Amino acid sequence: MLRPLLAGMLALPGGARVNVVPRADLMTMNIDERLGFILGRRSIRAYTPQAVSDEAVQKLLEAAMAAPSAAATDPWRFVVVKNREMLSRIADALPYGKMVGSAALGIVVCGDLEAAHDKQLSYLLQDCSAAIENLLLCAHVLGLGACWLGVHPREQRVKALHEILRLQISVIPMACIAIGYPAETKDPRTRFNPDYVRFEK
Amino acid sequence: MLRPLLAGMLALPGGARVNVVPRADLMTMNIDERLGFILGRRSIRAYTPQAVSDEAVQKLLEAAMAAPSAAATDPWRFVVVKNREMLSRIADALPYGKMVGSAALGIVVCGDLEAAHDKQLSYLLQDCSAAIENLLLCAHVLGLGACWLGVHPREQRVKALHEILRLQISVIPMACIAIGYPAETKDPRTRFNPDYVRFEK
Repeated sequence: MLRPLLAGMLALPGGARVNVVPRADLMTMNIDERLGFILGRRSIRAYTPQAVSDEAVQKLLEAAMAAPSAAATDPWRFVVVKNREMLSRIADALPYGKMVGSAALGIVVCGDLEAAHDKQLSYLLQDCSAAIENLLLCAHVLGLGACWLGVHPREQRVKALHEILRLQISVIPMACIAIGYPAETKDPRTRFNPDYVRFEK
Repeated sequence: MLRPLLAGMLALPGGARVNVVPRADLMTMNIDERLGFILGRRSIRAYTPQAVSDEAVQKLLEAAMAAPSAAATDPWRFVVVKNREMLSRIADALPYGKMVGSAALGIVVCGDLEAAHDKQLSYLLQDCSAAIENLLLCAHVLGLGACWLGVHPREQRVKALHEILRLQISVIPMACIAIGYPAETKDPRTRFNPDYVRFEK
């Protein structure tokens, strides 16, 4: 069945317009096919030297900022890094993030504590994490590989990223997402575990 | 181009197998169509009385547990609530969450601090939020409406949910997701804001 309310053109700030998904197209796919974009997203840590276009980066940011945030405060802030020297410095600051040094780009996802709902760190972390998951899924859909590299709550990493990116005092670097065209493939999976589910209580 | 590595059957714990998306199908859709599942997800706060099947709930949980977690510790725990009296009690505990009282079900997403990477609350919040975003996107794909109702860091709400659900001492209720078939529609959107993006620094 056509669901015209969900199809059509989407107006973006600045007057740009993009097509949004006509659900009728998706209706020809079964549920598991339609959920493949979630199960197929994996942490990709090896990248080809191929550059990532500015248009793709724009899509990643649009997807990230389509996440919900507490009281719609949108405390997320993004620093897009393509400069190789900067990427090397970030890689040096992240013990398990060496691969960002060979990625096409890194997007450092930060949260502005002044902008977060009630200036609460918990909301900042929740909102930024939802945005990151959207960004990772978008990367997968675009055929890119990406990996979430933890920064917060490691004080040394937070301090290092703060200095490298010259962030404002209220802006907390939460994670760095390494992004590039994948040089490794991984099978889709869920880590569904029935032990982690209770019914009613 | 066919990408057979991403197609085929996915083995789940317990021997169940599901089809995963054949990327060739998606290749017939343009990028904006393929990203529609992210931009089309909106917070839905009104629901029809229609029940949600156990199969759909299972998909929501599989999608949630396909999120990445810090050091793959998977600290997330889920309490599925369909009992109407329980839903009413949860609604009473959430000032902005009255709609869960009329939802087909609620899924309370908790984190076990003992299971979180380095027992850090920050990682617990990040991991659970990524799982929630997957769950919300999955709900949208399944034609369901869902809304993320904040619990943490509000002490009163955390305490109330803890009591209602009789959670273990180390398990923190982070959010309640109200879920049902939508009785309202919203247009797709991104809140993309160029002021929230910096390049290089």
